[in-house]
Formats: sequence, C-alpha cells, structure tokens
Amino acid sequence: MKFTRFEVKGAVHTGVAEGGIFKEIKGDIFGEWEYTGQSFSADEAKQLAPLVPNQIIGIGANYVSVKSDLPETLPEIPVFFFKPVSSVIGPDEDIIIPEGIEEVKFESELAVVIGREAKNVAESDVLDYVFGYTVGNDVTAPQFFHNDGHWTIGKSFDTFTPLGPVIETDLDPFQVKVEAKLNGSEKQNSSTELMIIPIRKMISYLTNVMTLLPGDVILTGSPVGAEMVRSGAVIECEIKEIGALRNTFAVARESAKTV
Amino acid sequence: MKFTRFEVKGAVHTGVAEGGIFKEIKGDIFGEWEYTGQSFSADEAKQLAPLVPNQIIGIGANYVSVKSDLPETLPEIPVFFFKPVSSVIGPDEDIIIPEGIEEVKFESELAVVIGREAKNVAESDVLDYVFGYTVGNDVTAPQFFHNDGHWTIGKSFDTFTPLGPVIETDLDPFQVKVEAKLNGSEKQNSSTELMIIPIRKMISYLTNVMTLLPGDVILTGSPVGAEMVRSGAVIECEIKEIGALRNTFAVARESAKTV
Repeated sequence: MKFTRFEVKGAVHTGVAEGGIFKEIKGDIFGEWEYTGQSFSADEAKQLAPLVPNQIIGIGANYVSVKSDLPETLPEIPVFFFKPVSSVIGPDEDIIIPEGIEEVKFESELAVVIGREAKNVAESDVLDYVFGYTVGNDVTAPQFFHNDGHWTIGKSFDTFTPLGPVIETDLDPFQVKVEAKLNGSEKQNSSTELMIIPIRKMISYLTNVMTLLPGDVILTGSPVGAEMVRSGAVIECEIKEIGALRNTFAVARESAKTV
Repeated sequence: MKFTRFEVKGAVHTGVAEGGIFKEIKGDIFGEWEYTGQSFSADEAKQLAPLVPNQIIGIGANYVSVKSDLPETLPEIPVFFFKPVSSVIGPDEDIIIPEGIEEVKFESELAVVIGREAKNVAESDVLDYVFGYTVGNDVTAPQFFHNDGHWTIGKSFDTFTPLGPVIETDLDPFQVKVEAKLNGSEKQNSSTELMIIPIRKMISYLTNVMTLLPGDVILTGSPVGAEMVRSGAVIECEIKEIGALRNTFAVARESAKTV
C-alpha cells in the first residue's frame, strides 16, 4: 500500500495512491484510519513529502561497492547523525544551495519509517516496528562539516532532506536497488545488500540506545556514486518499488526571487 | 511567568507556577491559552519536563573559565549536535547509566525554548523568538563518541536530557549563573557571560541554516566543572531565577528491577 500526502487547491490531504488515483483517508496512518470516500486524480494534485517526520536519523558511510568488500567485523559505534525536521521537502521542490557555496552533494537512500514505539528490539523483530519505506535524498554540504568531525551543520540546511514520493508498506527492503540519476544519467545503483551495517542491525542498535517513535525516519546510507552538483542540476533518486523522487538544485538567490 | 507540566493522580496538566500553587491552563503555551480555574498544590503534584520538545539542539565546548580567556575570533563553524526527544526526563527522575559502562558526565546548562518560527533572524532580534528558559542537563557518555568525532550516540541514550523544573519567560539570560551541585557540593557555577558563542550569535547562526520551530530547545553549553559520575550520585543543576533540576544516577540493572 502506498501512502501519500498531497495538496489540491491549497488544502493538504493524506491518501492511498492506486494507479493514477489518490484515495483520501482520515486518521493516523500509524494507528486508526479510514477512507473518506473522496478521490483525486494524481494529475490535479501536488505530492508533498509523504509524512512530517517526528525525527530524522541518518547513518554515514554505509555502502561498499561490491559484496567482497563487506568487512568481516562491523564498526563498534556506527556513525549516526540527526537532521532537523525543518529540512524536509517533497517531490519537485527545489533544493536550495546555501549562500557562499556553489556545490552540494546528493545522496540517494532507502528511508525507513518507524510505525511503533521501539526500545531494545532484537534484530529478528525489527521489521515488526517498521511502518514502511520511502526514498530520501540526504543532501549534504561538506564545506560546513566541522574540522573535528561534526556533520550537523553540513546536513541541516532547509530543503536538505527531500522525501517521497510515497511510503510503501509492502516492500522487502533486502531486495531493492537504490538508484540516482543526475540530469538523466545514472550515478548510483546499488542493492541494499551492499550496506555495511544492515537494516536489522542498524535499527536494533538504535533501539538499544534510544526509544524510537512513530514517525521517526531512518536514512539508511547512500551507495557509492554520490557527487557534488551545482545549481540547475536535476536529481532523481529512485527505488523502483517505491517511486522516483525528483528535485532541482537552485541557488538561494534564485529561490528568493520566486518567494 | 513560570510554565510547568505536572502529573496529579495519573493525569498530566499544564500550568503556571505561583508560589506553591500550580494554576492549570489549557491551550498552546506558544499561542492561545487560558486559565481553567483549577489549581493544585505543588505538594500533591509530580513535576514533569516543562515541555515535550519539538527538537533538541546542543552546542559543544562553549564556556571559558574566566572572561580573559574569551577568544578574539569565534570559530567559523560551531559544534552543534542534536539530541533525540526521547532522551527527555523531568525533575527527580533517574538518569540511567547505559549497560557496559560505569560512569557518565553531567553538564548543567541554560536551555532556550523557541516560541516562534525563526528563519534568518538577526542577532539583535533573536530574543523576539524566544519563549522562555529552563535548566537542562546534557548528560553525556563520551565512551560512545565515535573516533571520527561524531557525538550522536554518546548523547542520545534515553534519560540523557533532564529538563526543568519550569520554563521562566521573564529572565535576562545574560545576567544569570549556571550552577551544578554534585551530592550537595558545588561543581559548576559560571555566569553566562563566559559563553564563547553568546546566545544571540548562536541562535542567529542556527536560523541562517535551519528554520527553528516553536518547542525547539537549544542547550547553550555547559560551564567548566562537569565531571564523570557513577550510580547513586545526585546531581542538582540550577539557575536561581528558574529553579533547581535534581536527578539521581542509576544503573540500567537497578532501573530494570523497578519496571
């Protein structure tokens, strides 16, 4: 089932996408919800990020190029970071390159959406706490990384976390490929089997530290091939079973003109 | 005005603390609210963290010992980090030392509560976006810092962000002292004038990166004197004009027994 948020004539709706139709629902996607009976054509709707996350947690440097490069022993402490919820945008919105720099990096990722409160969850039970999956672009300005290794600012600018187009609840996350096309040409295309810290281990580890809550989004890392890009570039992050998340990079100046 | 959240007979209330009385209010403390007419004695109420934060942002290494140590030029990129909202506890709750380690660090801090959406705010206007101030304890397990400098895990454990006892809206943040007493003996006691990156600059910088939202909490750094402590230690973080935030350190094992 594909959950979507969308705007029609200025009003925001939640719905289920089926073919070219968005069937409106009401209630809590993580709890009780029902169809309202109203439907919209996808053509008349502007899709938004499929949820307003409670929190966003990312993992760094989590893919190898080929399976034979997977390490035998995993790092004791993975590189996790938070991104602010204010950095989220939806499909087709502009990613704004901050003033003072010319380039930022795209990073196509499988994003896990937590559906139930999760604390001390065993690896074998992790998927019971997952609501579904969307595509994320963990946009990054490494120029703003702190010399001592803190990534916070470089990952926190407004518009730096495109999410979408939908949350797919029926997905085998171990059998998908994470892709990115830059101006139409393929840059990233890796199976999630190339993750260094696999999804079950990653989320189990997190729940041994902190209580994860419904609406928490976990960005599971980006395959090899991410690049620095400039204003005007069009990036399409895609997982075939979920959909394509397309955004254009713009400079702050250009964006200000249109506001 | 001192805003408080508290529990009486299992029900959670929001109120205004006046002397020993909590006058209940309803509505949104950042927007429209009104008194319900009901009052509780502080003696019959258990105070909770004074808000459920939208996000928690901290700044690292932000105090000098004496004014003459203040640097002439400020760091270009401050060390900011996020803490998960699930790490928040209230006054008198136990801080749980994670399994596998024996010690964690207390860090008494002035916590700023944002009251209005804030983007690209000039230093001179920062206080217009501040709702009020509370006391925070930025509990830290440096054993879980990543070698490459990422602090996320070491600051993210459940119970690692005590907040309280109230949000004081009438406070001059430039004229207060941030104190901590460990088992009754003074360990931290510094004026906020000893901040390396002062509050106006810190929050203005953040709003040039990300949109801050009502309920965002900014931990403004901890004075010199923070220490590693063990189970059984009692820590009292205090800013006289706000109140004292008292918590006891406990090991995971002890805590599990009482659940």
